[in-house]
Amino acid sequence: MPEPRPISFLSDFGLDDEFVGVVHGVIARIAPEVRVIDVTHRVPRGDVRAGALALMRAIQYLPEGVALAVVDPGVGTARKAIAAETPWGYFVGPDNGLLSPAAAIVGGSVRAVAIENPELVLPSSGATFDGRDRFAPAAAALASGQASLDELGPAVHPDDIVPMVLPLPEIGESSIEGEAWWVDSFGNVQLNVGPEDLHEVGLSEGRPVEVIVGVLRRNATWVRSYGDVEVGTPLLHVDSSGMLALAVREGSATDFFVLRSGSRVTLRKP
Amino acid sequence: MPEPRPISFLSDFGLDDEFVGVVHGVIARIAPEVRVIDVTHRVPRGDVRAGALALMRAIQYLPEGVALAVVDPGVGTARKAIAAETPWGYFVGPDNGLLSPAAAIVGGSVRAVAIENPELVLPSSGATFDGRDRFAPAAAALASGQASLDELGPAVHPDDIVPMVLPLPEIGESSIEGEAWWVDSFGNVQLNVGPEDLHEVGLSEGRPVEVIVGVLRRNATWVRSYGDVEVGTPLLHVDSSGMLALAVREGSATDFFVLRSGSRVTLRKP
Amino acid sequence: MPEPRPISFLSDFGLDDEFVGVVHGVIARIAPEVRVIDVTHRVPRGDVRAGALALMRAIQYLPEGVALAVVDPGVGTARKAIAAETPWGYFVGPDNGLLSPAAAIVGGSVRAVAIENPELVLPSSGATFDGRDRFAPAAAALASGQASLDELGPAVHPDDIVPMVLPLPEIGESSIEGEAWWVDSFGNVQLNVGPEDLHEVGLSEGRPVEVIVGVLRRNATWVRSYGDVEVGTPLLHVDSSGMLALAVREGSATDFFVLRSGSRVTLRKP
Repeated sequence: MPEPRPISFLSDFGLDDEFVGVVHGVIARIAPEVRVIDVTHRVPRGDVRAGALALMRAIQYLPEGVALAVVDPGVGTARKAIAAETPWGYFVGPDNGLLSPAAAIVGGSVRAVAIENPELVLPSSGATFDGRDRFAPAAAALASGQASLDELGPAVHPDDIVPMVLPLPEIGESSIEGEAWWVDSFGNVQLNVGPEDLHEVGLSEGRPVEVIVGVLRRNATWVRSYGDVEVGTPLLHVDSSGMLALAVREGSATDFFVLRSGSRVTLRKP
Repeated sequence: MPEPRPISFLSDFGLDDEFVGVVHGVIARIAPEVRVIDVTHRVPRGDVRAGALALMRAIQYLPEGVALAVVDPGVGTARKAIAAETPWGYFVGPDNGLLSPAAAIVGGSVRAVAIENPELVLPSSGATFDGRDRFAPAAAALASGQASLDELGPAVHPDDIVPMVLPLPEIGESSIEGEAWWVDSFGNVQLNVGPEDLHEVGLSEGRPVEVIVGVLRRNATWVRSYGDVEVGTPLLHVDSSGMLALAVREGSATDFFVLRSGSRVTLRKP
Repeated sequence: MPEPRPISFLSDFGLDDEFVGVVHGVIARIAPEVRVIDVTHRVPRGDVRAGALALMRAIQYLPEGVALAVVDPGVGTARKAIAAETPWGYFVGPDNGLLSPAAAIVGGSVRAVAIENPELVLPSSGATFDGRDRFAPAAAALASGQASLDELGPAVHPDDIVPMVLPLPEIGESSIEGEAWWVDSFGNVQLNVGPEDLHEVGLSEGRPVEVIVGVLRRNATWVRSYGDVEVGTPLLHVDSSGMLALAVREGSATDFFVLRSGSRVTLRKP
């Protein structure tokens, strides 16, 4: 039996009910030696894109092993349950695009299967709770080495895994049309824009940037870190994921710029 | 010393304060080798019935060992602190009915004690925080094998443990009077009604059911899974705990049927 | 290599994003054998005093090892990142007063360093997320014994660590001017007042106390425990941290006395 590997677990189950605890319990019953790290369980309900982005941001910081992710508005439909092997380790979850961005940045899926082996699915007296009955046992079996990928079910070609289409910014002559794709709980707003995109339209660190959201136009200085502006001042910086983000020092960019996840944002020289 | 066994920990402590962390800390100081699984800590404050139902739903998925549960509006009163042995393992918590349904479905308490041995209770400079000072040390001692049940305190006859009286549905000629006993955070509403109850009044899978809440009458189709109805459509199904539940595909049954935990619900042929 | 020691982790990161999970991941990558206990991650955002008080209340219940605490409104400014050695173990976090009260009650810092060794800081493609890039690696290295304190960076004299100034109550002839310094999520209000302070102004257990908040005057009986008053009745008692606290049995003192953290409270004989 190989060395047990940790499971990193992300979901939209929330913490109000016993769902997360039950998944931990199922894993501990099957593979008591496997450690489980909770990435977050407060992905907005059914928001597959938000879950995919969170997993993508986190993956390089998680210990190699098994990523178990469940944001699954299609539970009870024909969407497949999959397990995929990547250079980082295994990804287990619904085939709805949730796993794809994270799997891609660690090297992509080299093999995948549909989790259908009935011997590895817990029986349920009613509706299947796939997180508990199908994904947790598969993750536990892979993490502990009790089953190989092939034993979980029939092969799925990696090219047939549902991708996650993430919006790209539109780079114009003098402006960028981007999108807010993550508002964190500090009120910081990450854009789908990288620092090289800003350089392309003539913007540079240390200079102000005009930020247009709907009819609202506001300026923010592109700085290296919070400490470069006064408390309460808006700023644009390369955040800890390497993407451009709007922030307000000790304040909330989501309030200041009137932004939410998915909002269109234009950046240009003032 | 026997093999250490895991502790599964449920409470209404919430996550805003350090209460849960302190209980983990106390366990780790006494028994560093014991693993602790958090079932949930967001049981509604002081809602012993909700905590008892959550533990009952979870118990068969938790690894055998020790269940530590604290929902304890009577802390500081004469209610006993108990530890009970069942075929699944030990249950530790207040004697207010919280532990009883879960203990019952794993075979019932065969022995029980009041946790009163002063050597196993942490001293406190003020009010006792029983979760920290009494229940956590008892759970740690049982899980690690540092103390036997008898060492915790005087025997309590299992018949004298406070039961949890759960409402039964009233099955009429053509309708069922039931109750919503769990609204999960997805807005699904579990009833105290099993599928066999519906059969008794002539309802069957695949057919519509009239759902009456107060003066509101709405229909829902009894289906096998979410995928059997369109997005936004109400449904009745046997949920993953084996009980009847009202749901709305990718929506909220609590909103649609105007229901909350404890609401009376009548089911009958439309 | 010495025995690995546990890390107790407190922050204001909240649970909505993947921040806490990423810190766990970084620790597990560096030191997979080290256990991490979550104290709480819902310290009010940027509230260094609230975080310091929570850590101070918890510390004696946490297993000796490493305390990793991050409430850091000054991230990205010149404030130092420190690690300090105390008789309890190591404290790791920002040098903003957060660590000081807890370190003091376990015996005080005997040695300290600024965490500046670039080999122990994770590279980031953008802004540093110090919890992830600087504090987590330092905590993991200390907990696992992979680095000694001295290897983390240059020495800081313990006297130069930023203290946390906590308000003291003003004891008058017949009254105490105190402050609410913690409102827990049950609505209990801990004051910066000890039982000996009340004795000094002639108040004693079993007797009523007049509680003045702004223009509002209300009485509460000083009792030993909740069970000594009726449900819904206000009380004053020595709480489980050894401090005076206002409470309402099965109710909320924050509502009843119209109090919040930081409110001034006068106590005197009615």
